Amino acid sequence: MLKDQERLDELIKEDLKIIQNDDVFSFSTDALLLGHFTEVRKNDKILDLCAGNGVISLLLSAKGTQMIESVEIQEKLVDMARRSYAYNQLEDRLKMHHLDLKEVYHNFKPSQYTLVTCNPPYFKENQLNQHQKEAHKIARHEIMCTLEDCMLAARHLLKQGGRLMMVHRADRLMDVLTEMRKASIEPKKVVFVYSKLNKSAVTIVVEGRMNGKPGLEIAPPFYIYNSDGEYSEEMREVYYG
Amino acid sequence: MLKDQERLDELIKEDLKIIQNDDVFSFSTDALLLGHFTEVRKNDKILDLCAGNGVISLLLSAKGTQMIESVEIQEKLVDMARRSYAYNQLEDRLKMHHLDLKEVYHNFKPSQYTLVTCNPPYFKENQLNQHQKEAHKIARHEIMCTLEDCMLAARHLLKQGGRLMMVHRADRLMDVLTEMRKASIEPKKVVFVYSKLNKSAVTIVVEGRMNGKPGLEIAPPFYIYNSDGEYSEEMREVYYG
Repeated sequence: MLKDQERLDELIKEDLKIIQNDDVFSFSTDALLLGHFTEVRKNDKILDLCAGNGVISLLLSAKGTQMIESVEIQEKLVDMARRSYAYNQLEDRLKMHHLDLKEVYHNFKPSQYTLVTCNPPYFKENQLNQHQKEAHKIARHEIMCTLEDCMLAARHLLKQGGRLMMVHRADRLMDVLTEMRKASIEPKKVVFVYSKLNKSAVTIVVEGRMNGKPGLEIAPPFYIYNSDGEYSEEMREVYYG
Repeated sequence: MLKDQERLDELIKEDLKIIQNDDVFSFSTDALLLGHFTEVRKNDKILDLCAGNGVISLLLSAKGTQMIESVEIQEKLVDMARRSYAYNQLEDRLKMHHLDLKEVYHNFKPSQYTLVTCNPPYFKENQLNQHQKEAHKIARHEIMCTLEDCMLAARHLLKQGGRLMMVHRADRLMDVLTEMRKASIEPKKVVFVYSKLNKSAVTIVVEGRMNGKPGLEIAPPFYIYNSDGEYSEEMREVYYG
């Protein structure tokens, strides 16, 4: 089942396997954080944007029993994800669309989802390092889609009151909040993720609500490491449950 | 020197006195936090907006030797501040203008200051409690000036590259960042202030820079209380030095 260079990694807490390939795509801590902070409600209709190798769908599959759809533009990643889903016998519940998210307007009826998740490319196109592998460039840089494209896709997909959960770099908080609000998705909650005590935040997890009322909650800070340089208790919970 | 109902409080770390009157105005913890997080550089030209009883000017006076100006609309508060300045023999350095900040355009040449501080009214006018005292209404609600008015005043006053330091409620982060950027003052740093561990943030201190480049630092979180319910070490530093 594994192709050249691929390996089978474990999602420990979920007791699931996932196909990874460092030359193409491996999920990051941020994907785990997005999965962790995303609450799945019984009647949620869920779609994951910028799905990569399908890690978010796998993480969320353990939180409910419904179908989870996703959208990914890179064919190699779609192929990896579909094989991971099959390996975990989740191919009936997890459905990945091989699609440019700028095309969701033609492929999905508007306002059908109550929960959209997104771990978008973090870097601007002009921060590109030409020595990166092509698949990495697309996954990490705003080449095939910008932050605005992600927000507009979410706006199309989300029902009134539906939630968007997005993970991003802390230094792009302004952009995330601004673009979210521009897409009529009101930022309702931000979790700041700090690597260590007494350092600036590195990552944000932002929850928005379609046409929500203004009023933003700043959640308690989340630390990845404790002062001994080991995973914090809350980070161990993310990994191991 | 004290008028009816007034008392003389202490700014312990600064070894200064300040006239307060609970019926009119007493400074809050947030003012101390704004003073604490505001760095004063040797050549800073400083102006404080929404100055109240002059607490920010007093706090910053201990961090440098330059003149500090301020603007306050309520005459009673201007009078209290001026008497506090005189009591501390700082009347030559601290100068309060009795002025509506919407009038700064007529009273101050543009782009003269490198540091503007502001502890604005926090609440929308429609959140007004009719039983409040008039002076409290004006100090706490956006009656005489809105957040946008504060930002536009700061834009008029600040030099290219000059800093705006503002304290506000955490749930208005979106408004602060949006209005700041709209006034060409780019948000560069946010400190989230948490009352207790595992609770949402209550207060924000935001630093903006006039025509600054995008890129926002999320500073380490600041806790007012420790897990024993006592002032945290960092909060004791704010109070006592």
